[in-house]
Amino acid sequence: MKVSQRSAVPPFAVMQIIAAANARRAAGQDVINLCAGEPVTGASDAVRERAREFLDGRSLGYTEALGAPLLRAALAAHYERWYGIDVDPARIAVTTGSSGGFMLAFLAAFDVGDRVALVRPGYPAYRNILGSLGCEVVELAAGADVGHAPTPAMLDAAHADAPLAGLVLASPANPTGTMIDADRLAGLAAWCAAHDVRLVSDEIYHGIVHDPSRWPGATAAHHLGTGAVVVSSFSKYWAMTGWRLGWLLLPEDLLAPVDALAGNVALCPPALAQHAAVAALEPDGYAAAARDAEQYGRSRAVLLARLDELGWHDVAPADGAFYLYADVSTSGLDSRDWCARLLDEAGVALTPGTDFDPVDGHRWVRLSFAQEPATITTAVDRIVAWQKTLASCGR
Amino acid sequence: MKVSQRSAVPPFAVMQIIAAANARRAAGQDVINLCAGEPVTGASDAVRERAREFLDGRSLGYTEALGAPLLRAALAAHYERWYGIDVDPARIAVTTGSSGGFMLAFLAAFDVGDRVALVRPGYPAYRNILGSLGCEVVELAAGADVGHAPTPAMLDAAHADAPLAGLVLASPANPTGTMIDADRLAGLAAWCAAHDVRLVSDEIYHGIVHDPSRWPGATAAHHLGTGAVVVSSFSKYWAMTGWRLGWLLLPEDLLAPVDALAGNVALCPPALAQHAAVAALEPDGYAAAARDAEQYGRSRAVLLARLDELGWHDVAPADGAFYLYADVSTSGLDSRDWCARLLDEAGVALTPGTDFDPVDGHRWVRLSFAQEPATITTAVDRIVAWQKTLASCGR
Repeated sequence: MKVSQRSAVPPFAVMQIIAAANARRAAGQDVINLCAGEPVTGASDAVRERAREFLDGRSLGYTEALGAPLLRAALAAHYERWYGIDVDPARIAVTTGSSGGFMLAFLAAFDVGDRVALVRPGYPAYRNILGSLGCEVVELAAGADVGHAPTPAMLDAAHADAPLAGLVLASPANPTGTMIDADRLAGLAAWCAAHDVRLVSDEIYHGIVHDPSRWPGATAAHHLGTGAVVVSSFSKYWAMTGWRLGWLLLPEDLLAPVDALAGNVALCPPALAQHAAVAALEPDGYAAAARDAEQYGRSRAVLLARLDELGWHDVAPADGAFYLYADVSTSGLDSRDWCARLLDEAGVALTPGTDFDPVDGHRWVRLSFAQEPATITTAVDRIVAWQKTLASCGR
Repeated sequence: MKVSQRSAVPPFAVMQIIAAANARRAAGQDVINLCAGEPVTGASDAVRERAREFLDGRSLGYTEALGAPLLRAALAAHYERWYGIDVDPARIAVTTGSSGGFMLAFLAAFDVGDRVALVRPGYPAYRNILGSLGCEVVELAAGADVGHAPTPAMLDAAHADAPLAGLVLASPANPTGTMIDADRLAGLAAWCAAHDVRLVSDEIYHGIVHDPSRWPGATAAHHLGTGAVVVSSFSKYWAMTGWRLGWLLLPEDLLAPVDALAGNVALCPPALAQHAAVAALEPDGYAAAARDAEQYGRSRAVLLARLDELGWHDVAPADGAFYLYADVSTSGLDSRDWCARLLDEAGVALTPGTDFDPVDGHRWVRLSFAQEPATITTAVDRIVAWQKTLASCGR
């Protein structure tokens, strides 16, 4: 029987490592899991309490396809609170995680054969979702010299090969943690508008920003007028990964297409998560998330202080999000082997860079520091000790 | 800015009617909502209690992409319990509702340009998801004479035009409630196997079957060996619509493709729903669902006893699921107008047949009787009275 060609996407290695780490834990072995892009804290008490209230009395049936009106209104107010932007709740589409948001945004904006640019290293699902939808992914190599983000010159070159239909940006970025500041974002949005290219801005790590002067991050919500789409999520700042709840902030021309698609593709996002997430956007919810973000900052400081000891000299800046992306190629190991052995021999799970960069990722690993500082200390101790065994046994 | 051609899917009218009905209710007006394919009861106490336990202590982070191992094992055991089939839990992929299951199954099985057959009337999201993924939808007109299901002769004719890659079946079907029995299903599965056509069997209404001798419904799980895929859900029998949880039962050749796609497209299904759904597959969970299904049977009896009074003489058999599909064309109104006016003038929400049949749906409406019998009685009273006003004012 035929299997589709489009399903020949590389599996998302981090999900496989999570499975391996869970199996190890189920077998009674100890694991420090720094591979998932996920806070350990989980949702705040405020969100859990709101969820309990809804469990007690409500049917928890389908909501409107674009989300419960109360949550859409709360999200619109969030843009006023964080960015000082007046947003019509009708512009918000609540989605099943940012994953559901990307699916809807890509379906609404791009047809089969459309060329969509993104940078590597970058979040692999952009590439794999676009590919499965029949879009042509145009990878732009973006190293430290360009802040791991595209430049107009890179876009000019890609557009000259054949017209681009879209550009996916992320700031703070996964896996590098680098950020695109407001001026640079405005320049890229202007380039997109001038070239009729749809800008899709992944802002799921907004708020997790380690320099207060750059908080919460520059938003493409200022550029909706030029057709930009914002993708965001409750997963990271509000630590609600397993709740599967995100949102889109849409330009006028994508409202009707996303509305039509959402009812067919997803029916609606998870209802209990929607009701509970309203509490995330109230004072107690914001306060809990801010405490978590401060903790990631302390964990980041622990990690950065020990880079010399780790022998990791080539690392991305980690200005935002909770990732350290480090070159471990001096070990002589491919990063996939490096990570498999680290998990097996030292009980620490990291993600190989091959998930994020099909060309150079075999040299890099991603460490998620969304953990307590003490956990990071223990993990670093183990990695340092394990790296010594690598060196001493000639691998 | 360009909007995709593939987003030009007709909006799913039922979602818009739900929004209109909710707005009416929010304005303090009374509505009997018989439009959503959704039980009013909501999840059982057993499921809610399990959800509360997980809210108290767990991080509710990402699960494995194909679902929490406990739930996959419980679903495998469910096939033994209901159908006497031994299923390997590795064949189960937990999904974000059956919607997420269809997306994954279609992506894994079909490429851009592949021809996939389905019957009309039928669930519109099949057609719209497939279309958005670039597949060519081949609609087979299936009236009452063929039990609203495809025949080998219809498939032969469609396959002769150009080879089919897939066939989507549903039993019990939405909107007609008709069922495909085991022999007929085996014949269709054999036809598919002989012609290298992937069979996708929607079994989300299994268990809601009004003739005990046909319970719980014939499953394509017997035909995994020929490449068939089963799609199912906790939404209907277990009344967990807003929890967004379904599953696939996969043939061997789709396991790896679905695994690779799931991690990219969805990351994982909602975690709390997964943990809670394990309780749906325990004795209390099954018992609560069975009580609901019995209630739908009583509501169905109320409705069928009043068909003459309603003047609805051409109705589908409603052997399973909780829908009555009725021809209201003697009113002289298009079903979209008929439904809009019924909601506006009598406060009863039904779904126009145009959602399910782009050709003949303007003659038909779908009534969901997943409600208490008393509610159905009141709704019928209102519809009967309203139809009289239509007749008396010459529309």
